[in-house]
Amino acid sequence: MKIAIAQLNPTIGDLNGNAQQILAAAQQAEKQSVRLLLTPELSLCGYPPRDLLLDPSFVSQMGATLQRLAEELPSQMAVLVGCVQPNERSLAFGGKPLFNSIALLQKGKIQQIFHKRLLPTYDVFDEYRYFEPGLEANSLVLEGERQEARGKGNEKDNAPITNYQLPITNYRSQLDSPIKIGVTICEDLWNDEEFWGRRSYAINPIEELIQQGVDLVVNLSASPYSANKQQVREAMLQHGSMRHQIPVLYTNQVGANDDLIFDGCSVGFNRAGEMVCRARAFETDLLIVEYDEQAGDLQPSKIAPTPANLDEEIWQALVLGVRDYTRKCGFSKVVLGLSGGIDSSLVAAIATAALGKENVLGVLMPSPYSSEHSVHDALELGKNLGILTQTIPIGDLMQGYDKTLEPLFAGTPFGIAEENIQSRIRGNLLMAVANKFGYLLLSTGNKSEMAVGYCTLYGDMNGGLAAIADVPKTRVYSICRWLNERGEERGVRSEGVNTNFRLPTPDSRLPTIPENVINKPPSAELKPGQLDQDSLPDYDTLDDILQKLIQEHQSAAQIVAAGHDAAVVDRVVQLVVKAEFKRRQAPPGLKITDRAFGTGWRMPIANKWVSHSRMPSSEVVSQAAASPSVPPR
Amino acid sequence: MKIAIAQLNPTIGDLNGNAQQILAAAQQAEKQSVRLLLTPELSLCGYPPRDLLLDPSFVSQMGATLQRLAEELPSQMAVLVGCVQPNERSLAFGGKPLFNSIALLQKGKIQQIFHKRLLPTYDVFDEYRYFEPGLEANSLVLEGERQEARGKGNEKDNAPITNYQLPITNYRSQLDSPIKIGVTICEDLWNDEEFWGRRSYAINPIEELIQQGVDLVVNLSASPYSANKQQVREAMLQHGSMRHQIPVLYTNQVGANDDLIFDGCSVGFNRAGEMVCRARAFETDLLIVEYDEQAGDLQPSKIAPTPANLDEEIWQALVLGVRDYTRKCGFSKVVLGLSGGIDSSLVAAIATAALGKENVLGVLMPSPYSSEHSVHDALELGKNLGILTQTIPIGDLMQGYDKTLEPLFAGTPFGIAEENIQSRIRGNLLMAVANKFGYLLLSTGNKSEMAVGYCTLYGDMNGGLAAIADVPKTRVYSICRWLNERGEERGVRSEGVNTNFRLPTPDSRLPTIPENVINKPPSAELKPGQLDQDSLPDYDTLDDILQKLIQEHQSAAQIVAAGHDAAVVDRVVQLVVKAEFKRRQAPPGLKITDRAFGTGWRMPIANKWVSHSRMPSSEVVSQAAASPSVPPR
Repeated sequence: MKIAIAQLNPTIGDLNGNAQQILAAAQQAEKQSVRLLLTPELSLCGYPPRDLLLDPSFVSQMGATLQRLAEELPSQMAVLVGCVQPNERSLAFGGKPLFNSIALLQKGKIQQIFHKRLLPTYDVFDEYRYFEPGLEANSLVLEGERQEARGKGNEKDNAPITNYQLPITNYRSQLDSPIKIGVTICEDLWNDEEFWGRRSYAINPIEELIQQGVDLVVNLSASPYSANKQQVREAMLQHGSMRHQIPVLYTNQVGANDDLIFDGCSVGFNRAGEMVCRARAFETDLLIVEYDEQAGDLQPSKIAPTPANLDEEIWQALVLGVRDYTRKCGFSKVVLGLSGGIDSSLVAAIATAALGKENVLGVLMPSPYSSEHSVHDALELGKNLGILTQTIPIGDLMQGYDKTLEPLFAGTPFGIAEENIQSRIRGNLLMAVANKFGYLLLSTGNKSEMAVGYCTLYGDMNGGLAAIADVPKTRVYSICRWLNERGEERGVRSEGVNTNFRLPTPDSRLPTIPENVINKPPSAELKPGQLDQDSLPDYDTLDDILQKLIQEHQSAAQIVAAGHDAAVVDRVVQLVVKAEFKRRQAPPGLKITDRAFGTGWRMPIANKWVSHSRMPSSEVVSQAAASPSVPPR
Repeated sequence: MKIAIAQLNPTIGDLNGNAQQILAAAQQAEKQSVRLLLTPELSLCGYPPRDLLLDPSFVSQMGATLQRLAEELPSQMAVLVGCVQPNERSLAFGGKPLFNSIALLQKGKIQQIFHKRLLPTYDVFDEYRYFEPGLEANSLVLEGERQEARGKGNEKDNAPITNYQLPITNYRSQLDSPIKIGVTICEDLWNDEEFWGRRSYAINPIEELIQQGVDLVVNLSASPYSANKQQVREAMLQHGSMRHQIPVLYTNQVGANDDLIFDGCSVGFNRAGEMVCRARAFETDLLIVEYDEQAGDLQPSKIAPTPANLDEEIWQALVLGVRDYTRKCGFSKVVLGLSGGIDSSLVAAIATAALGKENVLGVLMPSPYSSEHSVHDALELGKNLGILTQTIPIGDLMQGYDKTLEPLFAGTPFGIAEENIQSRIRGNLLMAVANKFGYLLLSTGNKSEMAVGYCTLYGDMNGGLAAIADVPKTRVYSICRWLNERGEERGVRSEGVNTNFRLPTPDSRLPTIPENVINKPPSAELKPGQLDQDSLPDYDTLDDILQKLIQEHQSAAQIVAAGHDAAVVDRVVQLVVKAEFKRRQAPPGLKITDRAFGTGWRMPIANKWVSHSRMPSSEVVSQAAASPSVPPR
């Protein structure tokens, strides 16, 4: 029996468009005699739909679209479609008004409904905000007489059969050689206490399915990308298939929706825990795999490669993130400021790979403090990428602000206010270009500077999307070095599977990022001779402290115990707390780590918790206020 | 027996400061022989602590602070303190790692721990992100022999006794005239299906407490303000006390934390459902009430008045919101732009009431398009309020931008890009003043313009706090009119209970807001002769459509059926969807309605759901892109 994984890229809320994607995948699968088609979690509305789920007309329209889709799909194929379903019991018995569900569509009808049982409510996930957990194990039976009968039988009975009504566990004995398939939705498979060393939820749906004697477990997911996550997924799924001696087929969403990137990489394991198939990373795919009824196992099929290293993986994620945000918001062109620094250089390269060189405009905005090499480096980058650049000097505007503010500022020394003015002039000019020509502005700040507030709100933070806001500065360097090495090897490696990240540079022998951009010391160039390291620890140190503080939830005492200088740690902690107001107003940033500033980071701003720094709060507040290097509000 | 409600204003994360507030309240209560002191939900860390709860050192420090507080409190008083507690079972059995709890402190120790049972996970609430619901009904017994014995007895037994271990239901028979008190936390009382007409949760904690024979129910809350919410709370609590014939004492947090304002208004009802006491609105309070052991009921006590009308109520909320955000973020002074329009006039009045006239700076930034009356009105407002004003004309900077951008913009017509430049020059100047002098910038946009995007990102949206971002334009007018009427009556009404919102105007006979500000047609003044109503429906119409769309979750079809013009409704719906990217980058806005843009509004940006407008999505997208009056990205 052939099963197909449709690794789709839905747009949030585009019910008709997403239904068309499912239909097209089914029609393609039909040509290859596929019996069962799997689509991702909430494939009909896209994941995550967020507060669209609070709109009753959205929910009812999704129901109507599901019904129409059932009628249009190839009649003999069983298709699992992700959708929400009303919780009819909630008014009388309490509970959330919806389920996160999977509909089994076949023979023109909705045949069965399955509800997600484990609802993630951590990091970027808010599922308990909308959904009630399903109470029963979900399984379906293919090739069963009773299903055939239902399809042809009582035509008045159009109501979907939920798993509350259906005596699933009695099925097997009534049917000829049925294949019983356990249906799980994303988180349902993420509670293996052997694998994780702890339970997150009281129940484990796969155990109940095994007890019910299923032959195969499928999982419909929308699992967001983070660095190295596919390794964890594969190890966990392998562990599950081996532990329970059951084949597992995992279907993931692909594509980016706002800050979340979905990497695809749908994958299958046989009873022995061997990988039998894998869909492509960061691209849509239709992956067909054979379930051998006699062996009761999945047969080996195509295994797509994953990125060769973490730099390539993050690069591909960001390219997809920029492309999908731009496209799904209705833009075709982007603009960004080119400073000659490494951050804007990387973002320009990502945008070029994502959208094509003809759709990227780089704007140089030199000030009297800009070094000559900055302008030169930015122009060289533009040439390497083949993108159009424009140069708009800001010296006159700086003088204009000085003159305008003189009545108020006379006698005060040059300081952070003046540094910020420069950044905000640039931000204003970039938005003017974006507004005038209908471009999307990309902001170029990295995670290290977002963490400590080494950035100007309403200045360099301006943009519709913050492309590398979750990429630490040291990783920015690492990706650029990888990019250049890859650039030099390009002639050799032209046969790569994944073509969507090949840079359209005019001369393939040139490195993509000018070497000087990578080798010079980083500087904001907001005053003469300024270097980042005048204000911040070196980035190796800073990123290690931030990793421990943000990703690993370590206290300042623990970080000091790990070998960092106590004063440096305290200062970094203070800066991170103090910069919360800037992060709150930042554009969506593409998430590539397991803890990004964004929807999964919910910090109070007016907050006096500072004792993970080892100082009394009064001291911390006064020091932070006096901190010379970070633009205060 | 005297019971005291400590209506406290904690700062998020300020464990020591919050503990000091509890201690001070207890010491004051001790002088009046209070036996039981109630404090709000999570009174030790402030509500909502949000992702601080993910920091293990924060949780452990809270435990240590609770222990110290127990030792320092008056020994004979029973004090209920809100705190989090670890869920020891979670590693082995699943579930969230914390409980939202109340600790009973007495005789120098933590005597009992109670866990919140119903966890709100809707609107601004994310409690399932952090907490596991408690499984058992919570009650404590005062004056019991066994508690006395525990206090003096086995000194080694210092471990807190949780309600898992304590055979609470056996207490009553063992004790002499005990008073059994049911302990509920906020949402625990919000599931009365008779009152709401539906259940939100499967269980109803008060019913279980009644079955256990409690004499009194206390509720420790942190219930955020929204317009008219106190009426709902009082009706619900009254219904509960009458239905179950039980006295109820409700303790609420007061003060503002970021976007959330807590109004206090703690209140008590006797068995007959009669109000016996109420604490002040929008101020801290210590309210003492007598529980008559013989009658088994609460005796009448002080009932503080609530605001006379909705305008006064919202005004008081906003004054508290601005004062607390400013103070808790460590600022003492604020700056804002004064356009002569009604929004900035109201925000200036709020800031003056919140912080004192000496702490408010108004900046006028006239352009060549500014009318003469705008400058005059702004200056008159400043004079009325007694605040300092500065005037910084922006004409030269506008010319500077024109000149700088000429190479790119030559030949294009004046349009939204140029309008936005003006707004962003002003935003930049205001931030320069804020940065230079260490002021907090208040932004002045109202909810109507935030909804339809009639505002400039990085321009007039700039600020640390959006004071009236949840106030519809029609309500802005209404509050200003009320303010002026009140101003004229001020001499007569000087004995008001609530003194924190009296405006320090230099001449009390003058109306606060110049009449011309209220009477002239609203205009952004970004081009000659521009009026808001050139681009938008009149505000009565717009606000009614927005109310139905946002607050009432109505579809476009329903709104049209209610009598609105179909084309107008469709246009408003499109504008609301399209402006999501601006709202995402807005500063925190003080929430005063039951659905504010902010932490309780979680919408995708790249979103193609538009069919609550009655048009196919392709049409909608193209129309929105061509919309002339709203600054696009």
